Amino acid sequence: MDRFLPRKDDYPKEIHKALRHSLFAGGKRIRPYLMVLIYYMYKKQLTPEILMPAAAIELLHTYTLIHDDLPEIDNDDYRRGKKTCHVVFGADIALLAGDSLLIESINMINNTHISVSKRIKLIKDLTAIAGERGLIAGQMQDILSENQECTKNTLEFIHINKTAKLLQLCTRWGAYLADAKAEEIKKMDEFGKKLGLAFQIVDDILDVEGNAETLGKSIGKDEKTRKATYPAVLGMKKSKALAEKYTNEALKILATYGRDAVYLEALTKYLLERKK
Amino acid sequence: MDRFLPRKDDYPKEIHKALRHSLFAGGKRIRPYLMVLIYYMYKKQLTPEILMPAAAIELLHTYTLIHDDLPEIDNDDYRRGKKTCHVVFGADIALLAGDSLLIESINMINNTHISVSKRIKLIKDLTAIAGERGLIAGQMQDILSENQECTKNTLEFIHINKTAKLLQLCTRWGAYLADAKAEEIKKMDEFGKKLGLAFQIVDDILDVEGNAETLGKSIGKDEKTRKATYPAVLGMKKSKALAEKYTNEALKILATYGRDAVYLEALTKYLLERKK
Repeated sequence: MDRFLPRKDDYPKEIHKALRHSLFAGGKRIRPYLMVLIYYMYKKQLTPEILMPAAAIELLHTYTLIHDDLPEIDNDDYRRGKKTCHVVFGADIALLAGDSLLIESINMINNTHISVSKRIKLIKDLTAIAGERGLIAGQMQDILSENQECTKNTLEFIHINKTAKLLQLCTRWGAYLADAKAEEIKKMDEFGKKLGLAFQIVDDILDVEGNAETLGKSIGKDEKTRKATYPAVLGMKKSKALAEKYTNEALKILATYGRDAVYLEALTKYLLERKK
Repeated sequence: MDRFLPRKDDYPKEIHKALRHSLFAGGKRIRPYLMVLIYYMYKKQLTPEILMPAAAIELLHTYTLIHDDLPEIDNDDYRRGKKTCHVVFGADIALLAGDSLLIESINMINNTHISVSKRIKLIKDLTAIAGERGLIAGQMQDILSENQECTKNTLEFIHINKTAKLLQLCTRWGAYLADAKAEEIKKMDEFGKKLGLAFQIVDDILDVEGNAETLGKSIGKDEKTRKATYPAVLGMKKSKALAEKYTNEALKILATYGRDAVYLEALTKYLLERKK
């Protein structure tokens, strides 16, 4: 990512500094990590081919964080343990930095040696899950559901679109780019969906029970704004049971790979037990 | 555009309504019109192949308008004679509507029968001019130059990146998609640059001398915020002379096409003399 993007003192430097601030603020890198692990599981080696699409997803993810944190949406001051982009650079520059990361994520896929037909497929996938039938739809319904009674169906719609679909894309791409068979890609898609839902439930739980310092972001905000979260809709006990259920279903899929999935298994378990 | 995008009552409808509000608010449609005219000049016919990329550019352009109009950037209440997206739907929804149009513009190029290698070229072009080395850089420098002394070089940097590059992309694509020769594409690129610079100077002039009702947007704002504009940096008389100079240079290129360029010539003249 560092080598691909303009240097932070390129002209006009404020924009490059701003997006690098958020992109290199740390973060768990779950999405690219997941993609690389799955690719490795099928391919038994790592090639540069996987790195650019994996990085592209991290750019896309960071764009959503910057825009979500803006004053008009979640108005969050901390993210990944650092001040958010708009707090440091102002909302105007943060807005542009988000736009820019979204654009560069697609640009990044194009700056690879992957065949054009594969690239077209990746870009189609990416715009499909990022657009108004994917991430944007989830984010939109999330905003509309604040301070509203929320059904279990709506809650699921939000979390599938806002979170699970992107994780699913990573697990699917890992297999697709390793030239895995169609049925394998489908299996990884299913794995990604279970993992994505578990991930979001844990996220909701951490917003209630987590430690702001460990998490690197403010906590308790969901409750204050009466967001549609799992603990709010199902209660804490049922939420924890559901996160565990999805995790177990994800692990069951991995079990069919035996020792080959040992890293993926560790990651899946970590995502359930994580404190950040 | 209407057939391609989700219906305005698709779930969650607020997002589809919001982006349709801005996209179908009227507007001159200069960019797609330009692309279609050039395509026709070379191809002597219109085929559906040109319509989707032309529409994609209008989506991209509308994304920039929605984000530019947001309170944190220009805080404009009117655009294309209608209330801006954030005034009607709120800044949170407008932000997402802009993001969505940007994503759908790329998605649109992919939903065509154009060959994959051509599509990759179009998407590369689009992300190159939209990103942090193009539109975003121009917009960024525009923001940084408010209330600052601005050199002629900086002014040109802003206007080439913020405006001319997108018009240039339209003129180039018109020729490229019609399978024109490399030297023809280059000629249209040059034409687009001249036209784009003339277009932006006229835009700056209209902000001073235009009529808000005819224009469909607020006027006098550039002066109030001490924006880097041609009239502010060069004075009104020199600005008008420069717009005329660029227009004449553009017309000179068109003259080499004789009667084939009659519509393009009329459009070029209109863009200089327009009152909106």
